[in-house]
Amino acid sequence: MINHLSDLSNEMIPAVEMELRDVLRFKEHGDDLFYGMMHYHMGWVNEELDSLEVNGGKRVRPLLCLLACAASGGDWKRTVPAAASIEFIHNFSLIHDDIQDASPTRRGRLTVWKLWGVSQAINTGDAMFALAHTAMERLSTRDVDDSISLQALRMLDNTSLELTRGQFMDMQFEERDDVSVDDYLAMINGKTAALLSLSAEIGALVSDCRPEIVRHFAAFGRDLGLAFQIRDDILGIWGDETVIGKSAATDIETRKKSLPVLHGLSKDDTLRRMYEEEDSSDEFVAAVVEHLGQTGSREFAESFEQKYVDSALAHLEAVSPEGKAGEALLQLTGSLLNRQF
Amino acid sequence: MINHLSDLSNEMIPAVEMELRDVLRFKEHGDDLFYGMMHYHMGWVNEELDSLEVNGGKRVRPLLCLLACAASGGDWKRTVPAAASIEFIHNFSLIHDDIQDASPTRRGRLTVWKLWGVSQAINTGDAMFALAHTAMERLSTRDVDDSISLQALRMLDNTSLELTRGQFMDMQFEERDDVSVDDYLAMINGKTAALLSLSAEIGALVSDCRPEIVRHFAAFGRDLGLAFQIRDDILGIWGDETVIGKSAATDIETRKKSLPVLHGLSKDDTLRRMYEEEDSSDEFVAAVVEHLGQTGSREFAESFEQKYVDSALAHLEAVSPEGKAGEALLQLTGSLLNRQF
Repeated sequence: MINHLSDLSNEMIPAVEMELRDVLRFKEHGDDLFYGMMHYHMGWVNEELDSLEVNGGKRVRPLLCLLACAASGGDWKRTVPAAASIEFIHNFSLIHDDIQDASPTRRGRLTVWKLWGVSQAINTGDAMFALAHTAMERLSTRDVDDSISLQALRMLDNTSLELTRGQFMDMQFEERDDVSVDDYLAMINGKTAALLSLSAEIGALVSDCRPEIVRHFAAFGRDLGLAFQIRDDILGIWGDETVIGKSAATDIETRKKSLPVLHGLSKDDTLRRMYEEEDSSDEFVAAVVEHLGQTGSREFAESFEQKYVDSALAHLEAVSPEGKAGEALLQLTGSLLNRQF
Repeated sequence: MINHLSDLSNEMIPAVEMELRDVLRFKEHGDDLFYGMMHYHMGWVNEELDSLEVNGGKRVRPLLCLLACAASGGDWKRTVPAAASIEFIHNFSLIHDDIQDASPTRRGRLTVWKLWGVSQAINTGDAMFALAHTAMERLSTRDVDDSISLQALRMLDNTSLELTRGQFMDMQFEERDDVSVDDYLAMINGKTAALLSLSAEIGALVSDCRPEIVRHFAAFGRDLGLAFQIRDDILGIWGDETVIGKSAATDIETRKKSLPVLHGLSKDDTLRRMYEEEDSSDEFVAAVVEHLGQTGSREFAESFEQKYVDSALAHLEAVSPEGKAGEALLQLTGSLLNRQF
């Protein structure tokens, strides 16, 4: 099979990078550190603000956006500002997440708050949130109608609200012992799926296809996001360390209330008691995983994952994605879910 | 003199309050606390989320926006979404400022971070930032052209960027001993003046007057903001406790690098040494104020204040503000600067 995903990525990602850098370009003298902290987070400079030759992340969301545009018959180049905007939203949320989770590192580098303190990191995220909008407002420089640009901005802000709502729930879950599967689905819907949905939706919106098609793309992105997050939850317990790059069962150590765990907790009182203990020894973690096996929690989560995969594929099929971009969209879906279609 | 300001405020502020509440209306079941924290910050509910009958702040920025619209010949009712948007931006920045300054109280009530923790407070500010945009996007429901709505959004995001840039500088100043008057002016320009400028600018923009008039309104708001902040700096040292509601010379106790202080530090080595001491006794603070008197730092700051007042009034005169709203605009300017024109 020809790798259209790789071909198109090689064209699309540099275009997105150029747009990202253009929006984050130093505007005034003395702004070095103000923009510098954003450049650092994007992976472009080191902590002394010297340029780096690095790979700045996978840019999954921009790619999804541009492929959705091309696959629905649009000119993806006109959608690049939207793709950049979405990438900024994602990164703004990461800067704030890292403060909220007290994470010292991300992708093997110190986090912004760790280097420059919490106050400056809050402000850096805020600045990037503003610039995400500035990026979207550049659609009109690519001959996109004002009404479409406005609609894209409205979608962006609805999604940002969903994102903060998901983050609110996620933080609340840490203190709640009554989290239901529905609560969990609402949380990942906001925290993970909303932005993937927006990516596909705006791509289709800018290509000016029928509202019905735009809705299918949005639903495709949402289901893809839900399946992706649930798969991540499964890997967080049963993943292969050598593949996922973090120790398996990390999520058990941190007592994360992921989907398999929520299922297990609802089925097994012993597990519920164990989850309240502070023990993080290998033996203890192994015992928890054993219990989760017995409660059928892995199968439970996999059935949800499968449901969302099937639904995502059905929405994708409904729009009959065109040409190479259509193929690439299927390949991207496969690579995100670690499957082949 | 007839008090047009009070008459128009009585009409305008309830319209803004209604818009603010409409944008912050609970959307989904389970969102009580998510929106509740925002309602608390706005002064609508207490910490148990029970409704309060309170005065939610002066709403200076919305008022400036609506008066600018009316005074430039527009229908202020169409501009209400923009006024609400600006009030949300102001409040989002206050929620984050309170975290950054570690302020336990605001307007005599516990701050959001103090009640619900830093992580939820960051997120509450983020949600309000998103909703500030949602508010602006409602302009089109009042028959405002898409191109004007888009322009308003662009201005909003430029201003938000200025705001975060000002906040970045303000936080940096605490650690710098080389802050110049120009640095200081750039900081208050972002942190205080930009949003007042936007308020007047968008009011005029929506009234659809000539670009030249819109620019005058923007410049009027900016100069007003600069004069207002410098006056606040002067009151922070020489203010009358019974009038300003905080102890005079608070800014000396906290070693704030305000305009008179920056001037004094550049003129007087003794003062520079004193400012590095930890002493906050009444005698010590009085000695600092005495020195600032000798260096002519009050007069220095007052000359800047006067310059910006004159410039603000010149811009206002240039637009020949119309009718009652024009009078009210002058009265608002006077009340902000504690003068009569």
